[in-house]
Amino acid sequence: MPFCNPLEFFAVSIQFQIEKNSGPGRVGKLRAPHAVIDTPAFMPVGTVGSVKAVSQDLLERLGVQILLGNTYHLYLRPGLDVVRRMGGLHHFMGWRRAILTDSGGFQVFSLNDLRKVTEEGVTFRSHLDGSTHFLSPERAMEVQIGLGADIIMAFDECTEYPADRARLRESMEMTLRWAARSKKYFEEHKEEVPWASSQLSAPSSQKGGGGSDQWLVTSGKSDERETSDQALITNHSTQALFGIVQGGMDRELRRESALRTMEIGFPGYAIGGLSVGEPRELTREIVEYTLEHLPSDKPRYLMGVGTPEEIALYACMGVDMMDCVLPTRAARHGLLFTSEGRISIKQARYIEDDGPLDPQCQCPICVRYSRAYLRHLYAANEILAQVLNSIHNLHFYMETMRRVRQEIAAEGRKRGPKQ
Amino acid sequence: MPFCNPLEFFAVSIQFQIEKNSGPGRVGKLRAPHAVIDTPAFMPVGTVGSVKAVSQDLLERLGVQILLGNTYHLYLRPGLDVVRRMGGLHHFMGWRRAILTDSGGFQVFSLNDLRKVTEEGVTFRSHLDGSTHFLSPERAMEVQIGLGADIIMAFDECTEYPADRARLRESMEMTLRWAARSKKYFEEHKEEVPWASSQLSAPSSQKGGGGSDQWLVTSGKSDERETSDQALITNHSTQALFGIVQGGMDRELRRESALRTMEIGFPGYAIGGLSVGEPRELTREIVEYTLEHLPSDKPRYLMGVGTPEEIALYACMGVDMMDCVLPTRAARHGLLFTSEGRISIKQARYIEDDGPLDPQCQCPICVRYSRAYLRHLYAANEILAQVLNSIHNLHFYMETMRRVRQEIAAEGRKRGPKQ
Repeated sequence: MPFCNPLEFFAVSIQFQIEKNSGPGRVGKLRAPHAVIDTPAFMPVGTVGSVKAVSQDLLERLGVQILLGNTYHLYLRPGLDVVRRMGGLHHFMGWRRAILTDSGGFQVFSLNDLRKVTEEGVTFRSHLDGSTHFLSPERAMEVQIGLGADIIMAFDECTEYPADRARLRESMEMTLRWAARSKKYFEEHKEEVPWASSQLSAPSSQKGGGGSDQWLVTSGKSDERETSDQALITNHSTQALFGIVQGGMDRELRRESALRTMEIGFPGYAIGGLSVGEPRELTREIVEYTLEHLPSDKPRYLMGVGTPEEIALYACMGVDMMDCVLPTRAARHGLLFTSEGRISIKQARYIEDDGPLDPQCQCPICVRYSRAYLRHLYAANEILAQVLNSIHNLHFYMETMRRVRQEIAAEGRKRGPKQ
Repeated sequence: MPFCNPLEFFAVSIQFQIEKNSGPGRVGKLRAPHAVIDTPAFMPVGTVGSVKAVSQDLLERLGVQILLGNTYHLYLRPGLDVVRRMGGLHHFMGWRRAILTDSGGFQVFSLNDLRKVTEEGVTFRSHLDGSTHFLSPERAMEVQIGLGADIIMAFDECTEYPADRARLRESMEMTLRWAARSKKYFEEHKEEVPWASSQLSAPSSQKGGGGSDQWLVTSGKSDERETSDQALITNHSTQALFGIVQGGMDRELRRESALRTMEIGFPGYAIGGLSVGEPRELTREIVEYTLEHLPSDKPRYLMGVGTPEEIALYACMGVDMMDCVLPTRAARHGLLFTSEGRISIKQARYIEDDGPLDPQCQCPICVRYSRAYLRHLYAANEILAQVLNSIHNLHFYMETMRRVRQEIAAEGRKRGPKQ
């Protein structure tokens, strides 16, 4: 009776369906174990198991279908063993929808001056207490399987910028070998994901999740919750492991990295090694060039990008997933994104400005509070400033992606008959 | 046509109706301009225009009908002129329900070592920038009228503890003279409240408040919103000025202060000068004794109290209103109130505790998150720790008062036939 034991099903990871194309841009649905994700999607960053200052209830209300967790931070605190024994990151943080974890590589390289890289892996010191740790492709897989995100990333080296061609090739070659090792370990251990044997037991239901519904909003967004729950209940999935294309700012190496990563074979591909200090125009060129060499039927994830203008641009260029700390980090510094441009809310000009932050915005902040109040909270160093600012900026990002999806879908429909 | 000009109505401030008695305890309804408040009521403290870390949406969901603003803090930042020009504190902070402001006296005395007290008033230095300010009964009224809370407090001197009898009498006498001056100024200027001429224009409606309803929860608490809105729309009220009973720990002086404050005449009476370092048992004795000398048909407000056990105790003793920073301040230090006692969430014993903070609690935190997650957020110094902890503690306080009201009402009903 296969229905009695989900593990007897043929395990699938993700399903990706493109629904409309408009030029290189496309809208689709990415079905992951814990949610169906509308693409192109923006993923808020929940560094250490929390999207800073924003509760999981609010993330749901903002329409977040997938968020990103940082393997490096979670590995150090609370640690793999704790999260694994608590049933994985979904259960640990009370998040029912999808999660993607990065490989830890980027933080190892950006937060550690004393790291030591060998073919085997990277030895580094914790930025918290200076303790020594080691991450290899195998260990990064073990950690990410234990964290139990829906989508996990191959362990890669994020090459510094600038770097000469010899260095870029050497680094890219090692990332390719690490990708193969990542895949091998993942295939051999993917059934060890904490939720593999208990998928029908949603995290919240163990704590009377039904009771929490009284706190949920019915706001025309119920479809997102339904599809989310549906994904959880009807799929008996494993995680999905994505490969990462490196190669710095060298087009030839980018092409080679893409093709050889595809030869290894992954259900999705990320573009890494960008937003590392290079000019924005160069980022755009490398993204555009790299996208041409990635399979069109697989999700494409551009890591660590970007401003609202950039995420819209890259979505139109055919990127399906993006993540960035900018909306939440900028919010905590009083920098707010609006339909009329950026606002630095600390400025004295807003002391008696009774208008909403963004007259075009229907987020819970803009419909209730004035610029004067937000300016006051920021000036008085109130915690609520960080909370309200973060909610608004995340809403702005989610809304940006919603509009891009609508535009691509509308364009795609017009073009339909001519195809 | 009096309906066209609310000011032509006979201005009322508050209406207080006791519905059930049980011994000295009573449950009732306090109808204020912006809300109908179920008493006994706990008032969360929104020091500087924000209940720290908790949004106004959430306060509504927690059933908060009235919150407290600190005149001293608001006077310094953002300042009276800003709040007044923004239409008063309700509009400024986007809060539709009731507000009470204290007189500023307590903070002047507790936050300023260099204050200078004369018969005229108090000269003090800002704890923010050292600038010199002056508060008198008249100025405290001017500020509180400008802030526009539903209930405001007479300017008093909070006598230090311990103090000898001569000092206590001197201080009490001055507080009585200040109470008379407060009342005189208030009666002459109460029509200057920012919302007096525009009561039908709710703060949120000016910014498309209807749109915000999509973010509000329908959770069986709609009655609270309705009564709240009803109070706003149907009353054409002024603020209510409460008197404050002082007298330190001296019973005779407390009795005299109560009687002479009642001679001046106020629609409600507060017990001040407690929780200033005296033993808890002494606090209880003085409260009990003072309550005996206050009119039973007027609301009685015990200032700055207390623990969950204390607010339940004092409610049963006949106190109708209380405020305290404890639930939110303790939350920010990881001290959480539960039906099983206090929990210091930072403790290592909770690292892998998958249970809810309080198994008896139906707050949005306890139905979604584990102790392990809350402990992790606190240990990682995440902002969300302060947010979630504050929500839980406030819920615990609100729920404590709800249960006390139910108990008094149930007892009162049983005793009904025998009266």
